[in-house]
Amino acid sequence: MTPLPSFERLVTALERLPGIGPKSARRIAHWLLAAPAGEEKMLSEALAEARARTRRCSICHMLTEADPCAVCSEPSRDSRLLAVVEEAPDAEVLERTHEFRGRYHVLDGALAPLKGIGPDDLNVEDLLERVKAGGVEEVLVATNPNVEGEATALYLARRLKPLGVRVTRLALGLPVGAALEFADEVTLSRSLAGRREM
Amino acid sequence: MTPLPSFERLVTALERLPGIGPKSARRIAHWLLAAPAGEEKMLSEALAEARARTRRCSICHMLTEADPCAVCSEPSRDSRLLAVVEEAPDAEVLERTHEFRGRYHVLDGALAPLKGIGPDDLNVEDLLERVKAGGVEEVLVATNPNVEGEATALYLARRLKPLGVRVTRLALGLPVGAALEFADEVTLSRSLAGRREM
Repeated sequence: MTPLPSFERLVTALERLPGIGPKSARRIAHWLLAAPAGEEKMLSEALAEARARTRRCSICHMLTEADPCAVCSEPSRDSRLLAVVEEAPDAEVLERTHEFRGRYHVLDGALAPLKGIGPDDLNVEDLLERVKAGGVEEVLVATNPNVEGEATALYLARRLKPLGVRVTRLALGLPVGAALEFADEVTLSRSLAGRREM
Repeated sequence: MTPLPSFERLVTALERLPGIGPKSARRIAHWLLAAPAGEEKMLSEALAEARARTRRCSICHMLTEADPCAVCSEPSRDSRLLAVVEEAPDAEVLERTHEFRGRYHVLDGALAPLKGIGPDDLNVEDLLERVKAGGVEEVLVATNPNVEGEATALYLARRLKPLGVRVTRLALGLPVGAALEFADEVTLSRSLAGRREM
């Protein structure tokens, strides 16, 4: 089967999307080419429109159509509590719990010295400015519980504590509904260390 | 967090892609909006170009840039053997084994009476025409090993056998590298029934 250059270019472009491997990319490419013209147009137009209409909030760097974003401009949100996340989708996940009523700050990444990503590549300076401006009492550093996220949290704690705010981190432990049997040792150790009185 | 209409429209469009659930769609949408303009353009242009350049082969219904496709016009392929698949990507998978040297015929689906998909909705008539035209000795019905694929295979066998060709089906059994312990009963029964002399 001779490869089709235009098909392969589409597959290559699709493979760059997050979470899309070579097999999914081929499957999606086939679907896109087999779909009626209206279907493909819907996607292209939705993409162009979303690119044109959305921007980053100048305060928290969340995706928004109006600047400042809905969270930053909502008076009922608790300005004393600020959650710092690596990427905008992380804030969406927190939002879906309906338990977090504070505001957000998106770093746009995590510290990764080996990849050459330092504090200057993240939205750190304006986070410090937001805290210095006053009103924030607690910064919840909700970076990922992995090496880079932990390193970022430690760095931020060192920069934030001198400003007189509480710096907190999400609890680590077993996921709800999980079986103890299948928990990995690291999670279980963290879960044990964080055990709570009943 | 007020939803962003243009962002949600993009998510909705992405959710229509095969294998993309709500979470992946949101992740991809965020990526597409955060990506530099060149990145997004690469995808849009690759899609438009592939849509413009590719068509279905008038003989086998595979995706192609030239009609007839490379497989149908390659003289070295074995015209006596014809593999019938539900969708074009299935042919790609067979092709990747490098073991199949015959030609293909894409049905564009499988029989599904409950969804109102009958033989007239599939590329069945021109499959029969191809066989009637002579030269084909064996039709390998490589539809999926599920209810709809089996029903389609039975239907095709009934239509093809009177034309004097052998009709075959892919072997069912354990996947290579799999552990017996985790095999489902149905697969294991089929594997047992198809056991081979060593």
